[in-house]
Order: sequence, then C-alpha cells, then structure tokens
Amino acid sequence: MTDLPLVGTRHKLVRKVNSIVGAPSLDLLSVEEPLEIRIRYGPESDRIQKNVSVTMRTPGNDLELALGFLFTEGIISSYHDVAGIYHIDMSCTSQKENIVQVELAEAFVPHLMHAERNFYTTSSCGVCGKGSIQSIRTVSPFNDWYKPELRLPTAVLYELPKKMKDAQSAFAATGGIHASGLFSLNGDLLLLREDVGRHNALDKLIGNALACDMLPLEQHILLLSGRASFELIQKAAMAGISIVAAIGAPSSLAVELAIEFDMTLLGFLKEDRFNIYSSSDRILIPTTYEN
Amino acid sequence: MTDLPLVGTRHKLVRKVNSIVGAPSLDLLSVEEPLEIRIRYGPESDRIQKNVSVTMRTPGNDLELALGFLFTEGIISSYHDVAGIYHIDMSCTSQKENIVQVELAEAFVPHLMHAERNFYTTSSCGVCGKGSIQSIRTVSPFNDWYKPELRLPTAVLYELPKKMKDAQSAFAATGGIHASGLFSLNGDLLLLREDVGRHNALDKLIGNALACDMLPLEQHILLLSGRASFELIQKAAMAGISIVAAIGAPSSLAVELAIEFDMTLLGFLKEDRFNIYSSSDRILIPTTYEN
Repeated sequence: MTDLPLVGTRHKLVRKVNSIVGAPSLDLLSVEEPLEIRIRYGPESDRIQKNVSVTMRTPGNDLELALGFLFTEGIISSYHDVAGIYHIDMSCTSQKENIVQVELAEAFVPHLMHAERNFYTTSSCGVCGKGSIQSIRTVSPFNDWYKPELRLPTAVLYELPKKMKDAQSAFAATGGIHASGLFSLNGDLLLLREDVGRHNALDKLIGNALACDMLPLEQHILLLSGRASFELIQKAAMAGISIVAAIGAPSSLAVELAIEFDMTLLGFLKEDRFNIYSSSDRILIPTTYEN
Repeated sequence: MTDLPLVGTRHKLVRKVNSIVGAPSLDLLSVEEPLEIRIRYGPESDRIQKNVSVTMRTPGNDLELALGFLFTEGIISSYHDVAGIYHIDMSCTSQKENIVQVELAEAFVPHLMHAERNFYTTSSCGVCGKGSIQSIRTVSPFNDWYKPELRLPTAVLYELPKKMKDAQSAFAATGGIHASGLFSLNGDLLLLREDVGRHNALDKLIGNALACDMLPLEQHILLLSGRASFELIQKAAMAGISIVAAIGAPSSLAVELAIEFDMTLLGFLKEDRFNIYSSSDRILIPTTYEN
C-alpha cells in the first residue's frame, strides 16, 4: 500500500483539506521522542551517576548527540574525557532507546556547574548578553586558536543551500526537520545531520566531528537550515568553526557572539545573495562596492 | 539617517552581497537576551529563593513570559498562586531587565519536581513518548475539562495566517521571529506574541491569558507561525486549547499528544488548504470526501 517510512519519520493517516475536498491521505511525520543523557564519573569503586539533560529529539545518531551536547555545553573538554558511550534499554514498550549513558574517564572531573544551568548565564554581573559571551570565552577550548586567513569565493557559498537540500531531500519531505551541514572550503558536503530540534542537529554534527578528531573546524563551513540563534552560534564557537552560514536570520546576540569570536557569520544565504554580519574579510566580495 | 528600531529589534550595519555588489547597508535584527526566572516561596519569615529557568528570549512581555512558563511547566496551577511579579535591576550596564522574580503566595507550595527537569520525563517507565504524554495528563488542570462541540468552517481557518502576518508585519521585517496568535472562533485576532524562541512566544501568550482569567482557552484557536513540536502542544494542552493550527509541520509526538487530549491539530495551514491530524470532527469539512 505504501513504502516503509524513512528512518526518523513515521506515516500518519491525515485528512488533507483544500477548497474542494477533505480527503484522507497518508502524511509523513518527523519522529520526536525524548532522550535522556546520563553521565557516570569518578573512581571505579565509587562511580557517580547523573542525569544532565533531557531533550526532545529525532531518534538516530543518539551517541553523537550525547557526545556533542556534553562538549558544546562545556561538560567535557575533549573526546579523551569519554571512556564509553551506549544506549540503556529500559524495556519500555514504547521506545527502547531513549537513554544514552556516557562513561567518563576515571581521572576526569566533569564541569558539572555547566550542567546545572546553561554556562553562559553564570556571569558575575548577573544575566546579561555581554556576560553570556564572556562566559563562553572562558570555557571554549578554541578561543585563542589560530584562525586561518581565508578568502572564500561567493560562488562556493551560493551552492551550499542546494547541496544540503538535495542531500536531505527525502527527509525534508516531512517539512518539519532542521539540518546542519558541514562543508569543506571547496563546498563539498562532508557531514549532514537532521533533527526536529535545531540544536540537536548541530550537536549530532559536532559530536561526530569530535569523535573523528576533526576539531577545531576552522577549515570548514557550517550551514544551518534555519535561523542563527545565540545557542547555535555558541555551539559553533565551541567547535572552533570559522564560517557559519544560515538560511534564515541571525539574532542580535548571535551576531555579537560571532564578532567576539572573529567568526564569519552569514545570514539569508540564497542561491545568489547573502548578508555578512561579522568578519567579512574571509569572503571574497565582488569589488564594485568594496571599501 | 534611519528610523528608530522597533521594540525587540536592533539595527546592524551589514554587508549585503549578491552577484553584482557587496554593499554595506542597514539590517534589522531580532534582539535576543537571556532571561532568568526566579521564584520566592514559603512563609514570610523564611522565604526561599530559587532560579527555575534561564531562557534566551526577545525582551518584552517578560512578566507574561515568566507567568506562562511557570504555568505551562506545571510549577504553578493558577494565577492565585502568584502574589507578585517584577523585574530585578542588577545594575548591569548591558541589560538591566534580564531577571524576573515571581513571589508565590505564602500558603502555596510550588511543584518544584517539575522545575528540576521537564515534567514530561518523570514517567515510571523511564523516558519514552508514551510516558511523557501520561505525565502531562497527570499535571494538566484542564485534562478532563468539557470540550465544546464546534464545527469550524474552513473559511475561518484559511484567513488566519494572513491576519497574523499583517499584525506582525513590522516585526517580521527581521525575518527571524516566531509568533503565536490567539483567535476567537470567528477568526478575530485577540492576542499576538512574538519571540526569537517559539516556546517563549507561546508562554507570553498563555501568561497573558492566565493573568486575564481567560483559561481554559477551549473556545479559541491558537495559530503557531512555525512547526508544531511536542513542547508547544504540551503548553497548549496545559492551557486547555481545543484547536491548534500550525503554519508548519507537526512532529509525531505532537500528534500523539493532540490525539490523547482530544485537541484538533492542523498543520501546513495555508490560504486554501491544511491537514488535519487529530479530532477532525471540530472542522466543517467540504463534503465531497466526507465519510
């Protein structure tokens, strides 16, 4: 009657209504399920277990998601801090794989104050945007990392949205999924992750890159399928990414953070245009208005 | 040189690049700043203060946001639980109004286990979608509320997106803002709230409705500018909303929750079509395919 749904999607009988008919038909939904991320740490004789996050995510690449989350939230600093990572089967009839446990290295002390609440809010002057940015500066491992001199042609950038869309075209059939794509400076798509939550898609991508020893990603371009919020730019900064392009708009604080980290932030990237919000020197801009 | 920016937006000099030029020009950004929500509770002689959330939000309607958050997360059950609510000035040079303190009524004991982590993850079988839905059933004050018999004409629904877009047109100039709109059953826009975070826009709206003693919202239509995630449908369910329409797609778990709560959930609402995912009996469907 119908093909099997893709991984991360589910068929649902819906009623499609337009001006003429209200016909029942099959629709494809993005799957959303809770994922609990637990860590275990301390000496073997006295391991401590702690739940650090529950996030609503699209199942798939869960181990990467857990790894990326721990890293971009500053709870771990490198892949060496991790001794093992696996699903826990709670034998729930509904969903068996909604808990991931991360075993941390015995000698490693996790930065748990970061887990208590988002670390960018622990600034000395209370909660403010400037303080949030300073906090990230303290925690980011690639803060003072060498930033390469790049001059990226606009033609490379114009092609990125279509490349990502083509790669995710099947999944995108649901109309309800966010994507993060990692590209080489030549515009080759190296890694694509998707999720109902935009922060999860990026954590999955960074988790994979971390496990593959690719960090910092200073010779790469990150493409975000939607808006560039502070949270996403914070995660990109933690991974040392030099160039971030978003299909949608950035927020004010996202731009401030990009400026502070000398990250090139592009918004509204289309097949023939984009806006540059920070560090424009990495883009080879047509010369008509260069100044 | 330029008009003052709208509330919640900020001007930024950007470089707009297209195939011909890379001209500097002014762009309008959605403002994003952290907001800390604190509660104080207990007897007057021994008040306890607790930070329950930090969220990245667009400043404006902060008191509504705090109120809506506490209610939709199940920490308070009614507006009577609140004795006072106000900003705290931390004298930070960057942003003075990023902390809201909520004074709870002396006799009231806040449901703090809900604040420790999202309450929909405290199910007995561990973390699973079915358990998440059951947990909300336990907490929602309008779970067994009378659901009215409605037969909403499709024409009313088709007009909602344009009405909301017109009302937010100025703000939408940034291209980076989410909106939640509350409509009467006649299709009149009663309330509109916007934010860089979609959950914040809805919390602001529900916070206003709670303070105005409008809950449950069983004679209203909620319109979401983007996707319908589980989190948004959970908040709508807490407010007793009968009909939720989204411009974008719903997730699988959002649909399951809507079915469980007998909420009519519409997705992909356009000016001439939409999909019905649950409780279709409240929609007056064209008869060609009625069955």
